[in-house]
Amino acid sequence: MTLRIGLAGLGNVGAGVVKILGQNEDLVARRAGQPIVVTAVSARDRNRDRGVSLGGIAWVDDATELAARDDVDVVVELIGGSDGPALTLARRTLAANKPLVTANKAMLAHHGIELAEAAEKAGLPLKYEAAVAGGIPVIKGLAEGAAANRITRVYGVMNGTCNYILSRMEAEGLDFAPVLADAQALGFAEADPSFDIDGVDTAHKLSILAALAFGARIDFAGVATHGIRSLASADIAQAAALGFRIKLVGLAEAEDGKLFQRVHPALVPIDHPIATTMGPLNAVVVEGDFVGRLFFQGRGAGEGPTASAVVADLVDIARGDVRPPFTMPVADLAALPRATSADRRGRYYLRLNVADRAGVLAELTAALRDCGVSIESLVQRGTSASGDAMVVMVTHEAREADVVESLARMAASPSVVGAPVMMHILGF
Amino acid sequence: MTLRIGLAGLGNVGAGVVKILGQNEDLVARRAGQPIVVTAVSARDRNRDRGVSLGGIAWVDDATELAARDDVDVVVELIGGSDGPALTLARRTLAANKPLVTANKAMLAHHGIELAEAAEKAGLPLKYEAAVAGGIPVIKGLAEGAAANRITRVYGVMNGTCNYILSRMEAEGLDFAPVLADAQALGFAEADPSFDIDGVDTAHKLSILAALAFGARIDFAGVATHGIRSLASADIAQAAALGFRIKLVGLAEAEDGKLFQRVHPALVPIDHPIATTMGPLNAVVVEGDFVGRLFFQGRGAGEGPTASAVVADLVDIARGDVRPPFTMPVADLAALPRATSADRRGRYYLRLNVADRAGVLAELTAALRDCGVSIESLVQRGTSASGDAMVVMVTHEAREADVVESLARMAASPSVVGAPVMMHILGF
Repeated sequence: MTLRIGLAGLGNVGAGVVKILGQNEDLVARRAGQPIVVTAVSARDRNRDRGVSLGGIAWVDDATELAARDDVDVVVELIGGSDGPALTLARRTLAANKPLVTANKAMLAHHGIELAEAAEKAGLPLKYEAAVAGGIPVIKGLAEGAAANRITRVYGVMNGTCNYILSRMEAEGLDFAPVLADAQALGFAEADPSFDIDGVDTAHKLSILAALAFGARIDFAGVATHGIRSLASADIAQAAALGFRIKLVGLAEAEDGKLFQRVHPALVPIDHPIATTMGPLNAVVVEGDFVGRLFFQGRGAGEGPTASAVVADLVDIARGDVRPPFTMPVADLAALPRATSADRRGRYYLRLNVADRAGVLAELTAALRDCGVSIESLVQRGTSASGDAMVVMVTHEAREADVVESLARMAASPSVVGAPVMMHILGF
Repeated sequence: MTLRIGLAGLGNVGAGVVKILGQNEDLVARRAGQPIVVTAVSARDRNRDRGVSLGGIAWVDDATELAARDDVDVVVELIGGSDGPALTLARRTLAANKPLVTANKAMLAHHGIELAEAAEKAGLPLKYEAAVAGGIPVIKGLAEGAAANRITRVYGVMNGTCNYILSRMEAEGLDFAPVLADAQALGFAEADPSFDIDGVDTAHKLSILAALAFGARIDFAGVATHGIRSLASADIAQAAALGFRIKLVGLAEAEDGKLFQRVHPALVPIDHPIATTMGPLNAVVVEGDFVGRLFFQGRGAGEGPTASAVVADLVDIARGDVRPPFTMPVADLAALPRATSADRRGRYYLRLNVADRAGVLAELTAALRDCGVSIESLVQRGTSASGDAMVVMVTHEAREADVVESLARMAASPSVVGAPVMMHILGF
């Protein structure tokens, strides 16, 4: 017996899958209990050199036709995009009674429940380890490894582009814009980087993790999403001086039957394992009622790591491992109401640029006092260029709505220049 | 349908399993696809209060009789010990055609291949997530999550007692002996702590990871094992000054068809994720040819975490997931020859206590020179009490056999007091 793969999409990850199944053929066959062979592929450009041999593999112009082929047992969807041919192929694959492997977080965030229902009805595996955190087996770790636990919280650093930019801003003391431009020139950020830097990609991934963690229906629209565009090198330096590193964190919690999901830049204590997640690394923390904190870290993107996750899914399928895609039947997944952030409590980092004139600090601190927010530390620095000053404050534990209100009052002051920055301090 | 569990051993972990299956009953049932219920237990003392209700659960005086009971579908072995009743129960369970879950690393290190053969012949799951690194799903992460990869190296911090002792030595500046005594008084170290502090427990776990990682037959006897008894607070302070933290590391590598396995205290760079593994935490690193470095961290022992791993195995069994216990059939596991350490290259930490007299340093440095070992840094400090001095050296990259030889020459000098300490510096 051989497991025959139809592979849709031959970018980095698709080429990586072909490479692994060639280079580690015997090893994978022994672990899978049978050989795993790519029999058909589809991609846009037939003539591009991808550094792998496609000899003996059928070429299919229309990817959606892979599903119906007699020489394909399992379809691997690496086309990307929430809809379009990826979704058509996914639907056709399950309708053709074949297992589906996908790395497509956008498709799952938007259509995961529909696809899970189709897979469940047909008793088929729908697997997506590569969709979240690249090569890290975090879907498996959460869905299977932590299966005994009521999960209370899941969070992590899940976007390589943002983490690369933040790591370089820190290492080189540069502002966001020049690092982004350089990252684009080097191919580490896309021409249109908004999905990454505005947090949308992280939100896709977070919504999938939250569904798995809490037995909830995916609620991508319920993720409050903030990106990293407004960060300055001064924020990173100030955070470092206070013992923190800034990361774009996706966080989901379930409390009192409500679901809280947010993507936002946050200050992470330097001795927290998340803080060691530099450059191309991703990391995910899972907190369970019996296991405590589980931490997973590894490469979050790239040919090798992401293809490694795809092939792990194929090995599971070859071993006959069939489970509901979100750990339990879709009918058991709860449509959890959304928790608001107003009553969350924590410490916050605030940065404002202000005109350097008498009485400004009194004005700011009065706004905080009037909202019941007390200050743990405050730094004011003159900035050489503009003559303005920068004020950085860290609050004591406070109610988030109070901090937001105080910031709105401060921002309304004529002394405040530009938009203030507010970031959460990871307190767990 | 219900999966009925026979539980042998009601220490912390056994009580934790009963607690999880009670407290998270519905959740586990939804994830497992069926209820999981403990129907029979066995332990030494029937009257001990374990903080969990055993009402409705049959009590069995002889644990080995659990295997044959009609009301038991799966046996969970938590008795411990490499042989004796644990092994008898394991054999009888598989012979009775029932899946086995065990947390028993000693039994697996010594009899894992025999048991895997029996499980394989009968087509049964033999699962042991709880045997290595407590609640961390590292068996699953390695065997399944990294299945696409040729594993080149696996290493980690896998003994909670040692890590607790080292963390306290660092935090409080104390020597080994008083911290051990206090750990024993507090119940964090056993009355006879030798299995933990001499590295034997880590060696058990390492031999299991190595078999999984490299498709090799378990070779526990091939693990070169060194414990932490000889460490002084001065070593920890010196390592810290150089930017390292000392951890008891279990390391396995496969190279040129040979297997290298070693347990030893090592200097870990402070920015390495392993270095964030303090107190009761465990951590494991897996390096694969496509995925790169995967890092897993979490609680390595204790009621909740270890029981969480046991129940995760039960969920897998309930879901019908049957694989060869060491990822591939026993017949495919290679009996790898042992690699020696002589030709390994790396940087080393050396500490000697010497008589504080003229010419001692010249003597030491000559020994190093004559063996072709060059020194990156050297610190000599007088020690207040004895009038002796302590010399700490870090070598440049050197061949291990040369460092060992130079150390032997130095130790033979009448100026050197007591046994010198040599530790490896983690260079990857």
